[in-house]
Amino acid sequence: MRLHFLGTGDCAGIPVYNCDCQVCSESRLKPALRRQGSGALLTAGPTRVLIDAGPPHLEQHLGSPPDLILLSHYHIDHVFGLFPLRWGCRDQPIPVFGPDDPAGCADLFKHPGILDFRAPLAPFVSHRHHGLEILPLPLNHSKPSLGFFLEYQGGRLAWLCDTGGLPEPTLTFLQRRPPQLMVLDCTLPPQEDDHPNHNDIERAIALHQRIGAQATCLTHVSHRLDLWLATTAFVPPAGVTIAADGMTLDIGP
Amino acid sequence: MRLHFLGTGDCAGIPVYNCDCQVCSESRLKPALRRQGSGALLTAGPTRVLIDAGPPHLEQHLGSPPDLILLSHYHIDHVFGLFPLRWGCRDQPIPVFGPDDPAGCADLFKHPGILDFRAPLAPFVSHRHHGLEILPLPLNHSKPSLGFFLEYQGGRLAWLCDTGGLPEPTLTFLQRRPPQLMVLDCTLPPQEDDHPNHNDIERAIALHQRIGAQATCLTHVSHRLDLWLATTAFVPPAGVTIAADGMTLDIGP
Repeated sequence: MRLHFLGTGDCAGIPVYNCDCQVCSESRLKPALRRQGSGALLTAGPTRVLIDAGPPHLEQHLGSPPDLILLSHYHIDHVFGLFPLRWGCRDQPIPVFGPDDPAGCADLFKHPGILDFRAPLAPFVSHRHHGLEILPLPLNHSKPSLGFFLEYQGGRLAWLCDTGGLPEPTLTFLQRRPPQLMVLDCTLPPQEDDHPNHNDIERAIALHQRIGAQATCLTHVSHRLDLWLATTAFVPPAGVTIAADGMTLDIGP
Repeated sequence: MRLHFLGTGDCAGIPVYNCDCQVCSESRLKPALRRQGSGALLTAGPTRVLIDAGPPHLEQHLGSPPDLILLSHYHIDHVFGLFPLRWGCRDQPIPVFGPDDPAGCADLFKHPGILDFRAPLAPFVSHRHHGLEILPLPLNHSKPSLGFFLEYQGGRLAWLCDTGGLPEPTLTFLQRRPPQLMVLDCTLPPQEDDHPNHNDIERAIALHQRIGAQATCLTHVSHRLDLWLATTAFVPPAGVTIAADGMTLDIGP
């Protein structure tokens, strides 16, 4: 499998509007430092899966339509790009799978355009698409949210965003089947108290170690975290990297 | 007054996702042909007003925060850019004025961030901001919508989008006080029947002529209209132009 990050920022993105912190100021000069809303394109053999849809101009990133779309949840920074995309040209609608959230986001369900919103996914009930196995996992968030454990020809990817920590059943499952790559919510610099909806970097690294993932890539990064990383001598432990927009990772046995 | 168009497209934008029509294909090669969602920045002396907020990356267009934001309505293609912008940095929140629509769009009212949503505007009840007079006008649309008649030092601008035709009170008002510049919904190529929510180009030109605006600039342009314009010998009548993203127009007596 190959995972290509389209967006790795939190709901504000980077640069944050009207922010003159070091990170936001530098990112206005260096596009490589910018972060759009959360989303990635997964290629698993013949199957192309859009996981979350945060970047608004998906037209520029996707090329031909993906075979399916997986949504972790219906907060707007994870479905932003679907609003123009739904009015695209396509004979066959694109199947969209997400958690059980009848409210969805704005008028997406009312006016789906070329999107075909399928029955909500249930935790731990797997789906197969041309050899790609998709297992939804519970997460901790303020809106109904799912992570995804994706397996293809011995490659195992866990996509876990947005979440504050992990529910016990998800943690136990991942400890039993450690993924080669775990993509994990890491929105914040170290916090005094655990945030209910998002991980800080210490909590994210502790989860990496408890799960024993071969590699963990931290995403949903706020300008506060990037500023902390830029101004401390922090070095992530072996196996842990910070995601960047445009980064591509290979996942395999 | 000076009006700078940030976005002049309809809800799909141009290029439309996965569309291979002549307009969409050319626009992928020539950014000047692209159209983002509806929005413009008006400068009236010391006052800067964002009128609608369709473009998603307002961070790149706005510079310092506007003094106020006017929203024609809460369809997502007119408020899209507010979702990241609301999480920006700003001591004083930005006042936002729009029509009476308690549903708003997604969670904008619940999580306004730096936006200060003020009491809904009422048709024909004017507001003043440092010499800029703002008069809301009724429009015909599928969601509560207002046009704006904006006056500053003898300059008169009418912003009328989205609308299918114009309600009689709005038409009568504009005939009595023709603006120097009218920005008008013109989403569609000629249609057999009037569309309830948007103008086609023939209806838009008829409104220009009935109102006697000095100049009319047509906006909210779909790829279907751009394709029709590109493939017919149509020449707009004197005083009528088609808006483009990045276009700037001066309005004065």
